[in-house]
Amino acid sequence: MIDSWTLSETPCAFDRRLGTDALFTLGNGYLGCRGFFEEEQEGVEALGGIYMAGVFGKGDLKAWKGMHRELVNTPNFLWMSIRVDGEPVLARPRRISSYKRLLNMRTGTMTRSFIWKSARGIQVRFEFERFMSVADLHVAGQRLRITPLNGKPRIELVSGINANVKQHNLVTTIPLPIQPGRPHLRTLKAAGNVIETQVETLPDGVKIVEGQRIAVEGPAGRIRGVPAPAPGLVAERFVFNGRVNETVQLTKTIHYFTSRDGQAMTLLKKSMARAKDYDRLLQAHQRAWVNKWREIDIEIDGAMDDQQAVRFNLFQLVQACPEHDSRVSLGARGLSGEMHEGSVFWDNEIFKLPFFTFAHPPATRSMLRFRHRTLPEARRHAKDLWFEGAMYAWKSGDDGVEETEMGVGAYYAIHIIADIAYALRQYWEATGDDDFLFRYGTEILIETARFWKSRIHYDPIRKTHNILAVRGPNEYDVIVNNNCFTNMMVQENMRYAGEAVAFIQKTDPSAWRKLAARLKLKPREIDAWKTCAKGLVISYDKQRDLYAEDDMYLHRVPFDMKRGKPDARRVIDSTLPYEAMAYYQITKQSDVVTLMNLLPWKFTPRQKKLAYEFYEPKTAHDSSLSFTPHAVMAARLGMKKEAYRYFRECAYLDIADRQLNTISGLHFANLGGTWQAVIQGFAGLYQHDNRLYLAPHLPSAWQALRFRVNYRGALLQVEMRGCKTTVTLERAGTQPISLNLDGRSVRLIRVGQMVSV
Amino acid sequence: MIDSWTLSETPCAFDRRLGTDALFTLGNGYLGCRGFFEEEQEGVEALGGIYMAGVFGKGDLKAWKGMHRELVNTPNFLWMSIRVDGEPVLARPRRISSYKRLLNMRTGTMTRSFIWKSARGIQVRFEFERFMSVADLHVAGQRLRITPLNGKPRIELVSGINANVKQHNLVTTIPLPIQPGRPHLRTLKAAGNVIETQVETLPDGVKIVEGQRIAVEGPAGRIRGVPAPAPGLVAERFVFNGRVNETVQLTKTIHYFTSRDGQAMTLLKKSMARAKDYDRLLQAHQRAWVNKWREIDIEIDGAMDDQQAVRFNLFQLVQACPEHDSRVSLGARGLSGEMHEGSVFWDNEIFKLPFFTFAHPPATRSMLRFRHRTLPEARRHAKDLWFEGAMYAWKSGDDGVEETEMGVGAYYAIHIIADIAYALRQYWEATGDDDFLFRYGTEILIETARFWKSRIHYDPIRKTHNILAVRGPNEYDVIVNNNCFTNMMVQENMRYAGEAVAFIQKTDPSAWRKLAARLKLKPREIDAWKTCAKGLVISYDKQRDLYAEDDMYLHRVPFDMKRGKPDARRVIDSTLPYEAMAYYQITKQSDVVTLMNLLPWKFTPRQKKLAYEFYEPKTAHDSSLSFTPHAVMAARLGMKKEAYRYFRECAYLDIADRQLNTISGLHFANLGGTWQAVIQGFAGLYQHDNRLYLAPHLPSAWQALRFRVNYRGALLQVEMRGCKTTVTLERAGTQPISLNLDGRSVRLIRVGQMVSV
Repeated sequence: MIDSWTLSETPCAFDRRLGTDALFTLGNGYLGCRGFFEEEQEGVEALGGIYMAGVFGKGDLKAWKGMHRELVNTPNFLWMSIRVDGEPVLARPRRISSYKRLLNMRTGTMTRSFIWKSARGIQVRFEFERFMSVADLHVAGQRLRITPLNGKPRIELVSGINANVKQHNLVTTIPLPIQPGRPHLRTLKAAGNVIETQVETLPDGVKIVEGQRIAVEGPAGRIRGVPAPAPGLVAERFVFNGRVNETVQLTKTIHYFTSRDGQAMTLLKKSMARAKDYDRLLQAHQRAWVNKWREIDIEIDGAMDDQQAVRFNLFQLVQACPEHDSRVSLGARGLSGEMHEGSVFWDNEIFKLPFFTFAHPPATRSMLRFRHRTLPEARRHAKDLWFEGAMYAWKSGDDGVEETEMGVGAYYAIHIIADIAYALRQYWEATGDDDFLFRYGTEILIETARFWKSRIHYDPIRKTHNILAVRGPNEYDVIVNNNCFTNMMVQENMRYAGEAVAFIQKTDPSAWRKLAARLKLKPREIDAWKTCAKGLVISYDKQRDLYAEDDMYLHRVPFDMKRGKPDARRVIDSTLPYEAMAYYQITKQSDVVTLMNLLPWKFTPRQKKLAYEFYEPKTAHDSSLSFTPHAVMAARLGMKKEAYRYFRECAYLDIADRQLNTISGLHFANLGGTWQAVIQGFAGLYQHDNRLYLAPHLPSAWQALRFRVNYRGALLQVEMRGCKTTVTLERAGTQPISLNLDGRSVRLIRVGQMVSV
Repeated sequence: MIDSWTLSETPCAFDRRLGTDALFTLGNGYLGCRGFFEEEQEGVEALGGIYMAGVFGKGDLKAWKGMHRELVNTPNFLWMSIRVDGEPVLARPRRISSYKRLLNMRTGTMTRSFIWKSARGIQVRFEFERFMSVADLHVAGQRLRITPLNGKPRIELVSGINANVKQHNLVTTIPLPIQPGRPHLRTLKAAGNVIETQVETLPDGVKIVEGQRIAVEGPAGRIRGVPAPAPGLVAERFVFNGRVNETVQLTKTIHYFTSRDGQAMTLLKKSMARAKDYDRLLQAHQRAWVNKWREIDIEIDGAMDDQQAVRFNLFQLVQACPEHDSRVSLGARGLSGEMHEGSVFWDNEIFKLPFFTFAHPPATRSMLRFRHRTLPEARRHAKDLWFEGAMYAWKSGDDGVEETEMGVGAYYAIHIIADIAYALRQYWEATGDDDFLFRYGTEILIETARFWKSRIHYDPIRKTHNILAVRGPNEYDVIVNNNCFTNMMVQENMRYAGEAVAFIQKTDPSAWRKLAARLKLKPREIDAWKTCAKGLVISYDKQRDLYAEDDMYLHRVPFDMKRGKPDARRVIDSTLPYEAMAYYQITKQSDVVTLMNLLPWKFTPRQKKLAYEFYEPKTAHDSSLSFTPHAVMAARLGMKKEAYRYFRECAYLDIADRQLNTISGLHFANLGGTWQAVIQGFAGLYQHDNRLYLAPHLPSAWQALRFRVNYRGALLQVEMRGCKTTVTLERAGTQPISLNLDGRSVRLIRVGQMVSV
């Protein structure tokens, strides 16, 4: 029987432990803590893994200019060393029994228990519990219950904060094997129960301060600890003689701040001074999760496994989002691993933001503000490359500098710039957040439109506007011209810019004058955007009514997928070098299909079907970004079986480690993509022209689907059951809500109002 | 006053000594010995540099599959350690005076002399001489004369063969700074005067054996040495008390063999047993050079500097060619340095072979046989990449395996395959060597034509044959389709294959039947070559009568060369990343212009002029391969000033270190290119349709130009003086020789016959 609120592991997966660590990650957006074992282990298993949003160091990977930024593995504040009769308690086969690791997604806690047997046959039960508070972003809790089952073992317990941590791995493209990499931290102070470290690989590296409170109690009362200092470690040692079936309990609360928060040490001391006890902190944390789930949960009747998988994806997505801090965004692996170095790519805007926009809009606002904050760097980037406006980096750490290694195509993968504009417009349309548009959004739209104006090339021979030398979402397109995805998204970007300008001009003329003066914007620029957008070549085969990925795709060489991808590995890892991809009709990950999902109103159902049927067999799915668009498109086209198959590829991608690299972090785009597959696919949600569209396409295994949607300040409860859709207005917005339910237009005005179609 | 037979350096270029070492390289095709200082130096100056053709090890650079091959720095057999009153004689500023290093190109010797002053003020004159025998490829000679100028110094001289040598540098693209790299050699034996080492970085690494004979004589007779063994060293120590103005002379002969020659130790012993003394060996060497010069020399009246520069280029080109051994070819830096790891590229066939074909055809035959020998590997390469026939590697060591690092475009730069076919056809036409065609050439032509057949893509939409995803000579074309150079050379390749087949069928039907059976060649394959070649898209703008580099070049964005290349550095090193090149109309190195030089009969003079005028301002000349084609084309178009300017870019490229990387070896394509600029440019030489074309386009500074040409077994002496050309038949071929002299057809039949136009 599956419990859809938990994910559990039993027995211990010794051979792939580091891999499953990522699945058991807990976090609160401030930090993410992998599900590693608390008690000291040997070798790479001792690497831990606690990542703090915005805490970057510099590593060895070569970028175009200098070294790259990478998310720092911060001190392991759950660290323990346990000895029973002098023998270290290590998780080793044949020493461990009754093992169970359990992620409770409803409460945001992880527990782990096992019985350990010493070399001399003494058995002791260990029960761990931990949480990273979502009620107070600077608090974590840890509990350990120790119960001897025989003998009279002498138990030694050292509990501390250990700053002797190294990176898991410095090589992005090769997730295995993990090898201890560079350490980033220098310990500045370690005294009493507080440790202060600094990221020494950056000249102005972040300082991290952490403090702990530990209490150990047995049946005979409190057991006192003694300080156990060591380099890079603050810890206390507790020694006691265990008795059969008598439990000794360690309880620890951890407080943490960084110099990014202000005077970190002062903040820490205040936090520790006012700190509540473990149980009250845990209760507050659990209450906060109840509220979160009320907002984001999706309920599925009829498929407990899918219900569990969907909750897992939502849980992980939500708890990594640094919504509290617009100086950072949500990396490709969140705070659950080191692959892609904690950097943000286009998939943030296209795969993760839709969930937040409709489920929890403040998070989207914060992540779009991050893009606004990095505008200066995007402007510098454009200028460095001889363009105008703002050229967002393909790969950004916290400062917006292009982090892509040399030769990996950052010059080409510029669709990210239009993707940001798209997400921004989607947010504005869904929320009606004009304040955001005035203060941040319009500037982004203007600067990106300016970039496109300078990047678009008018070809005087063909008399067309072109975007040359790009790479679309299909990364096996080494370099192409007039990528359909890019060009149509650019048309949108330029239209959004023009419309935002017109909106401000009308709504707040004085704000507009200030902005226009600051950006030195001339009216003829706006006209030029229109001309450019209108003249852009759209790659399309009229005879076949088929949108082409780019102006050469249809002319390239058919690819033998059976020969090219005989197994689960990527084509370029198993059969041909990357360069060869430019020769074939091969799509690494969905390209035109993704476009059609983003702008569904732009294409006829026939065009969508033709595109799906043409590209799907040519798609290698060599990226975790490929399943979602296929799931959504198939669902909307009524191809139920295919939609469900692709949905399951998304939903179980990390749980089943389908890409063999969950070890280096969860696939965050795919977490958001699972929401997309369900809500945009099975529930057919999209917005267009001041109207929210919904249409049920449930898999046959599902009896019902329930979820909430934020739209224009209103909160809608949606239930789909078979072909029937019921929408209830739980909270009213500022205006009546226009819906299109399965083709029928309806309006919701009063709280409690319900419509069914 | 310039001596056109020598190149000299005075004073010592302390700050760029390693750079000039390459200029003073001596060699004999078996090995190349940089002009390093014999007496032991410190740090990187002690690196030496003796490279043997075909002696490769494996280094660290990442190739697509495994490590790369690199030319091995072999034992320094000129090594000495000199002490005066216990103080080491080091080449340091303020200790050296009257310094002169001189390369005598007529005799193939290098001398170096200087006066060294000890810390205590003792002055001693040192005079070195060395040669690498071109009369006996296994012998070198070294002489040192020591003359104290004051005091009574005690002089200690250790002379030996030192196997403690490391590579100069393992990074190809960054020539500076040189840092001692990997050592490849393990010493197997070092005893008496013989040392045996083995390349240990390859499982079947080559063994190298070397022996020395040393004699030291002073006014009082012979000075006896004592063995001075040390790890990796065989040496003798000589100690004597110097007397003012009395010269002591060391004379040393070195013998060397490798396991590539057979039983190396046996061969060495035989060679040493029958060895003549230094003077007789030197005389034989010098006589051999007299014969070489008779064949290859170019005489220029009116410009001694150009005369000297041209001789330098010819001298270095000839003495590195491993004509004796068709298991190897001539690398991009010959045997003069480590850049490009001793590998062979397309420029061998297109820039170096023309010289050998017309000046010394056996060398071309040998280097084309190298391509025949590596056919099995080229076939395997094609198969690995899903093609048929033979796909020659872009970068080959001695075994023909693709050595290009991953991601550097070897999949695209396939024009090399047609370039080999072109050079082969040129050789056959120029020599009439049917034996070569029968035994080797036809097989190469058939297998390369088969490759093209499989690589050409018939596009059913456009109904054209295309070569997609390539990179032409212009390496700033990151990836293009239908590169004009490639496609037209491929048409030639396929035509040559068909014609070779027809020729054998007619001339030797039984040989043909055997070959056809062995290669399983079907008649319809030959028809298919014709169809493919005929249908190939040629990028050409009819309206402008302009050949386009590829099908997009004319549609790309104009490039601001002033901004992009503000100084002598390459565009991609100074202003923009490499990826950006795909966006612009920019040519790294001559592309269409090179094509027009190779197939001059295919284009009208107007087309050539239009192409030159269009591409020349768009060309960054960021490669040493760019100046030659411009010099040739400008000369043929009668643009005398431009032709002369580009000729001088070629002729002085290494002498003046214009590319700032002569330190890592001479630019061998450009050495051959200098010959091309003079003979194919100023003298207008090319062959077509059984006829040799000559036409004078001398620079105004030159009064006359004289050279010899091998053609169809005949030897022609050519003199051009102003607009007048005189040709004399020095040696008859098998048939009358058809010439076109400045537009007039003439025939030469009898030896001594002379024609003037």
